[in-house]
Amino acid sequence: MKKISILGSTGSIGTQTVDVVRANRDKFEVVAISANSSVDLLLEQIKEFRPKYVAVYNENSAKKLKENIPTDIKIEVLSGMEGLKTISSLDEIDILLTAVVGMIGLVPTLCAIQKGITIALANKETLVTAGQLVMKEAKKYNVDILPVDSEHSAIFQALNGESHKTIEKIILTASGGPFRGKVKKDLLKITKNEALKHPNWSMGRKISIDSSTLMNKGLEVIEAKWLFDVDYKDVDVVVHPQSIIHSMVQFNDSSIIAQLGCPDMRLPIQYALTYPDRILNDFERLDFSKMSTFTFEKPDLETFPCLKLAYDCLNQGGTYCAALNSANEILVNEFLEDKIGFYDIPYYIEKTLEAHNSISEPTLEDILEIDRWSREFVKKSIK
Amino acid sequence: MKKISILGSTGSIGTQTVDVVRANRDKFEVVAISANSSVDLLLEQIKEFRPKYVAVYNENSAKKLKENIPTDIKIEVLSGMEGLKTISSLDEIDILLTAVVGMIGLVPTLCAIQKGITIALANKETLVTAGQLVMKEAKKYNVDILPVDSEHSAIFQALNGESHKTIEKIILTASGGPFRGKVKKDLLKITKNEALKHPNWSMGRKISIDSSTLMNKGLEVIEAKWLFDVDYKDVDVVVHPQSIIHSMVQFNDSSIIAQLGCPDMRLPIQYALTYPDRILNDFERLDFSKMSTFTFEKPDLETFPCLKLAYDCLNQGGTYCAALNSANEILVNEFLEDKIGFYDIPYYIEKTLEAHNSISEPTLEDILEIDRWSREFVKKSIK
Repeated sequence: MKKISILGSTGSIGTQTVDVVRANRDKFEVVAISANSSVDLLLEQIKEFRPKYVAVYNENSAKKLKENIPTDIKIEVLSGMEGLKTISSLDEIDILLTAVVGMIGLVPTLCAIQKGITIALANKETLVTAGQLVMKEAKKYNVDILPVDSEHSAIFQALNGESHKTIEKIILTASGGPFRGKVKKDLLKITKNEALKHPNWSMGRKISIDSSTLMNKGLEVIEAKWLFDVDYKDVDVVVHPQSIIHSMVQFNDSSIIAQLGCPDMRLPIQYALTYPDRILNDFERLDFSKMSTFTFEKPDLETFPCLKLAYDCLNQGGTYCAALNSANEILVNEFLEDKIGFYDIPYYIEKTLEAHNSISEPTLEDILEIDRWSREFVKKSIK
Repeated sequence: MKKISILGSTGSIGTQTVDVVRANRDKFEVVAISANSSVDLLLEQIKEFRPKYVAVYNENSAKKLKENIPTDIKIEVLSGMEGLKTISSLDEIDILLTAVVGMIGLVPTLCAIQKGITIALANKETLVTAGQLVMKEAKKYNVDILPVDSEHSAIFQALNGESHKTIEKIILTASGGPFRGKVKKDLLKITKNEALKHPNWSMGRKISIDSSTLMNKGLEVIEAKWLFDVDYKDVDVVVHPQSIIHSMVQFNDSSIIAQLGCPDMRLPIQYALTYPDRILNDFERLDFSKMSTFTFEKPDLETFPCLKLAYDCLNQGGTYCAALNSANEILVNEFLEDKIGFYDIPYYIEKTLEAHNSISEPTLEDILEIDRWSREFVKKSIK
């Protein structure tokens, strides 16, 4: 029985994690759950899974939840960042699934690592902002970081049984998002609703926008660099609109190992939870007799400058990736609130990077400070 | 330094094995080579690699070779089946690469297994005719059978690090051969030259004809069943004309792991020789930015009845696969000599199978006897 704490149990990945647990109650026990403010869904999950702890980031929502929990349910209700930290580092948990959105996942993840708890990482911003730091800590505490992103799970599966030193190249596949094939002038006036319509995956709002700008792929390149300890120049992106090949590894003998499947996030979630085992499920199987065609294209960096910005930040090193990520978080939010246009996202990221003072060996405090600075800088800039 | 004996060093796989050794003289030593009758090429290989033993199956060719070896070269020249058996079971070899064509490879392979020598198996007929026997012996002597067929090597690589009990399905890819998309009436009068033109792979004559009838894929299904110890119903064939995905394994959690690469037999050869390691080479790399499209189709069992016959034989069990293979060997030969038509191959195989008396737990002698009987039956039938 694996004991799980879920950071962000009410979001897209969180609810799908709950689905996986629901189908395997004999294998997994949910010890703790958390959310920002979705009290109603938390309450449902509490009734169904009877976790010992719940953390609500928003203090008012925490209060509201507390008032609504039936008196016969014994549960500790925590709040704020302290609450997230507590449920991430409980003595009794085997694995922390971190599915919060944005760099808010960083500190709780570090707390878990320092307690030797295995991380199932769906929160890519953690590695994007602080990859160097997080991987150093994971090594120090001998903690596995198991990817939940479908692409990184694919790479992780492809590397199973292989020697790390024979990796020649990581090939991240990208669907291309809802605007694949368009050029810049087609996209100048697009709205958030158009950007939210991902062709293959049903995902949260932040990641859907990141997919439409290809920033999501940029963040994934950064994540892959840290997770698999490779030079960023050895991480390629290829557009594969069908999203069937989830990613690939090319080895030094020219052989490529790929992982394929229907687009269903429950598979990488389940794999992270059951690793190193696989367990039977009823997820849809690929049917090659019905499959028509896989295609591949180069990503269009002119129409989607965010991907190029991510590579630029990797090239510059230091804390550029942290600044990029924080700026992007704010800008996506502003775009979702109809306050800025689609191309304002890369525009203001570039401005932020130009103004950024990079630090070469950042501490956690440095990164938190850069986060604060970037957010403030972006907010001031767009006024 | 791995010491290698090559059974069939002058054929298509044999010469490509020699290429791999040539590029890695610091890693491999060729201790013995053999051929049916290609004296000139054997002589060249002897001069280049200075093996200690050479076996020539044809007695006259052995004599001729002996006369032509320069006096300053010390080498033992062997002949006949005894010669093949000797060079397959030398004390000093680590690995036997068996690349002879047809079921002639069976007895030497068994000799090697009984000496505990690792087998790099390119001779699929060995497992097709005597899979049960060979795998039992391999288990008894704790011998690895490493596949050299590109499809089986792909499956073997996909299974690396995975648990055998989680295999749900093996998906063998097939190019479809030179006649993919044709129907029976288009093929009634095709010639051997048309059948020899494989779209993607440059291969020997026997396997090229087998590819044109899809019998090659049928033999591979049988080989996969034995090599990976799966029910034949869990071995699917999917036509993938581009031959980039070399095969796949579907696991019980719906995940599929595939191996991809340019069509180059040196890769599976090298992998079998370096396993469990991979080593750097200069083989062409796949370039996804230049790759247009992968397509998939169901195999057409009506136009290509040989594949269906292979599944039928697996379904019937016993020694049906051995009879199928021996009949096919003779019939391909006759077709290559313009003595029979394209559809005479499945026709006479079917006749052979109808007349065959299957044995459920065959000994080596039973299999050799079935081989003799099938060949004779076919020869008599086509007169």
